[in-house]
Amino acid sequence: MNQAVHQATTQSIEQMMTTLGQQARAASRILAGATTQSKNAALQAISQELQNQQADILAANAIDMQNGRANNLDAALLDRLELTPARFKGMLDGLHDVIALVDPIGAITDLTYRPSGIQLGKMRVPLGVVGMIYESRPNVTLEAASLALKSGNAIILRGGSEAFNSNQAIAKSIQAGLKIANLPESSVQVINTADRAAVGLLITMSDYVDVIIPRGGKGLIERVSREARVPVIKHLDGNCHVFVERQADLVKALPICLNSKTHRYGVCNAMETLLVDAPVAAEFLPQIAALYREKGVELRGDETTRSILSDALPATEQDWYEEYLAPILAIKVVDGLDEAIAHINKYGSHHTDVILTENYGKARRFLNEVDSSSVMINASSRFADGFEYGLGAEIGISTDKIHARGPVGLEGLTSQKWIVLGDGQIRV
Amino acid sequence: MNQAVHQATTQSIEQMMTTLGQQARAASRILAGATTQSKNAALQAISQELQNQQADILAANAIDMQNGRANNLDAALLDRLELTPARFKGMLDGLHDVIALVDPIGAITDLTYRPSGIQLGKMRVPLGVVGMIYESRPNVTLEAASLALKSGNAIILRGGSEAFNSNQAIAKSIQAGLKIANLPESSVQVINTADRAAVGLLITMSDYVDVIIPRGGKGLIERVSREARVPVIKHLDGNCHVFVERQADLVKALPICLNSKTHRYGVCNAMETLLVDAPVAAEFLPQIAALYREKGVELRGDETTRSILSDALPATEQDWYEEYLAPILAIKVVDGLDEAIAHINKYGSHHTDVILTENYGKARRFLNEVDSSSVMINASSRFADGFEYGLGAEIGISTDKIHARGPVGLEGLTSQKWIVLGDGQIRV
Repeated sequence: MNQAVHQATTQSIEQMMTTLGQQARAASRILAGATTQSKNAALQAISQELQNQQADILAANAIDMQNGRANNLDAALLDRLELTPARFKGMLDGLHDVIALVDPIGAITDLTYRPSGIQLGKMRVPLGVVGMIYESRPNVTLEAASLALKSGNAIILRGGSEAFNSNQAIAKSIQAGLKIANLPESSVQVINTADRAAVGLLITMSDYVDVIIPRGGKGLIERVSREARVPVIKHLDGNCHVFVERQADLVKALPICLNSKTHRYGVCNAMETLLVDAPVAAEFLPQIAALYREKGVELRGDETTRSILSDALPATEQDWYEEYLAPILAIKVVDGLDEAIAHINKYGSHHTDVILTENYGKARRFLNEVDSSSVMINASSRFADGFEYGLGAEIGISTDKIHARGPVGLEGLTSQKWIVLGDGQIRV
Repeated sequence: MNQAVHQATTQSIEQMMTTLGQQARAASRILAGATTQSKNAALQAISQELQNQQADILAANAIDMQNGRANNLDAALLDRLELTPARFKGMLDGLHDVIALVDPIGAITDLTYRPSGIQLGKMRVPLGVVGMIYESRPNVTLEAASLALKSGNAIILRGGSEAFNSNQAIAKSIQAGLKIANLPESSVQVINTADRAAVGLLITMSDYVDVIIPRGGKGLIERVSREARVPVIKHLDGNCHVFVERQADLVKALPICLNSKTHRYGVCNAMETLLVDAPVAAEFLPQIAALYREKGVELRGDETTRSILSDALPATEQDWYEEYLAPILAIKVVDGLDEAIAHINKYGSHHTDVILTENYGKARRFLNEVDSSSVMINASSRFADGFEYGLGAEIGISTDKIHARGPVGLEGLTSQKWIVLGDGQIRV
């Protein structure tokens, strides 16, 4: 009996997901041909609908918050879940930023003649259908939907179950806006079951989904990568380094090291390990440590660091791999550029790494040899961000090398097809 | 006892593959920093070594051919396997083409200032380690190795077992050339076991392999896509269409339709379905059918086609999906552009599709609305090719949308990292 019930449920989830997939695929064909004007009109209508429904959306969010508190969600999770009027306005501002972005679709580049006489170029096109799996942050629902629409993609959204009511309410406004603008409502669909089987289906429906973007805990992302039969743009950890090279301007180095670690702790572009070149360690470490102490940052150092900073705890081998996402910093004194680069390429997560130096040749070598999605000279690691990079809203930060690397904006949701313009050419 | 032996073998293959992977990863770090001069010197030395070892390589190929005949390989397979002196020269010519290509690595583009004062750009970098699984065509061994080296990647090659001796002999020359040029010999490694477990390991070693490129039968590619834990650039089928629109110049259309189908049959960019607009069907079909008959092409048509071409066989629904790779052509009479585009997007494989027309607006719509990796106007589908597109040798043709689409040359083996040049900027 129980088994029969289970089978029925499984079947209906499969059916539901297949329907979502088919609808998304059909919508994607229409979106691919939609004009910039029509897509922007839809985004404007969505903005208006969200404003009209603000009270309902905040009420839905209040239910999620109440459930969250009843289920003893931790403070950080509740904070991400909460929609205040100020955050709501922030969401709308983000939407208007997306409207203002240049539409990448249809752009033709590199149109040149080949010796055969054909004219060859590339045209930017949408990927098709995006599947997005993300944490319980309702603002991501709108961000992801608006980026997908602007780039001509349909999207299927699966947010964290704690944000269920908020996401349904936001989706309602999005679909109302789409309807007003005469674009398919199924351009943006929110999966409305908490059953985890839905995720398993979403990431394997290669007929209906062209790319999966998972955001959230490492466990989720590893599961998605392992089980997906659809290409994945994934964001694993951000173990970022700042290397204070011996020829660094230490006056500049202090604010950069402080900003990279303490501007925000729980973000992937925060510094987790500070590398200091041996000749400047005795001068620099006490100064920066004083600033960290003021902020309450726990310091964990190698032996040399601890001989300079007596209150630093000992760092273990594991600390060099760690993404703390907390007021904790590992510090290592290294002997020059080679050791710094080797350390970063070995222990780092290829996310964002920074050198502080006034030496031209060393800056150039660091830029070339560090294998990370963002490599920086004399700037805070915190700049590795879609907004700071001018991409508009960002749908994620890719730690992959294939397709999109680093912050993923509109362009990451597109592909290029080849176009050939001829006058009767045949191949000889 | 048998189980113990089996375990030992499995263990040793695992050990072998791990060693290959670690060596490739280590080599990739050196290749990523190698200068253009050094990579070209290695390719030159490889060319010289191949010339020196030509007799040995052809002798090794003769053994493979002998084994192939003894194992009753079919004629097409034997043809691909065979290395004649002329084909050997063709291989060397291809290698020299790769030497002449511009090195994409290190190119910095889009360097612009952001409002924060940081200067942001992108730098082209190698992917790292490429895993290549391919049919029994020894020339692919050299093509893939030379493209990987030029783009700063290490490569692990797994060719068809029928080409075992040929591939080992070619790899020996490649590694000798690498040694002469002081680049790691393990930059190019050939798996030297026929055990299929090696493939299973290659496509799941995500620590050591950054991308897998499978070439060959659909069964292989589907298996790799299903089991891989590493991103895959895959090439599935090429069900290509030519659409003769009512405003086509029929004088140009005849040679293009002939060339697209009969220039070569067993290739992925050959036309498999001819679509003819109803108003010109009665005039065009008899003319083109006469040319196909001369070449011995079997025609399979829908009802309207058969009312015009009495000797055409009836086409079934399955024919519209078929990649014949043979002197067989499906023909359908359609009623205008919309039906043609809908047919192509439904039945096609998103590889290469062509419209023949002199109508500007329809050409433009076809270009925008057909969702294929190459979309052409008034040219033969046979142009969808890395050489014709000016990519130099091609490592494959991707039917994916993610990362690389269509013919994949050097650039498909690279990625871009973000670079940030600052003067002390911190995030506010």
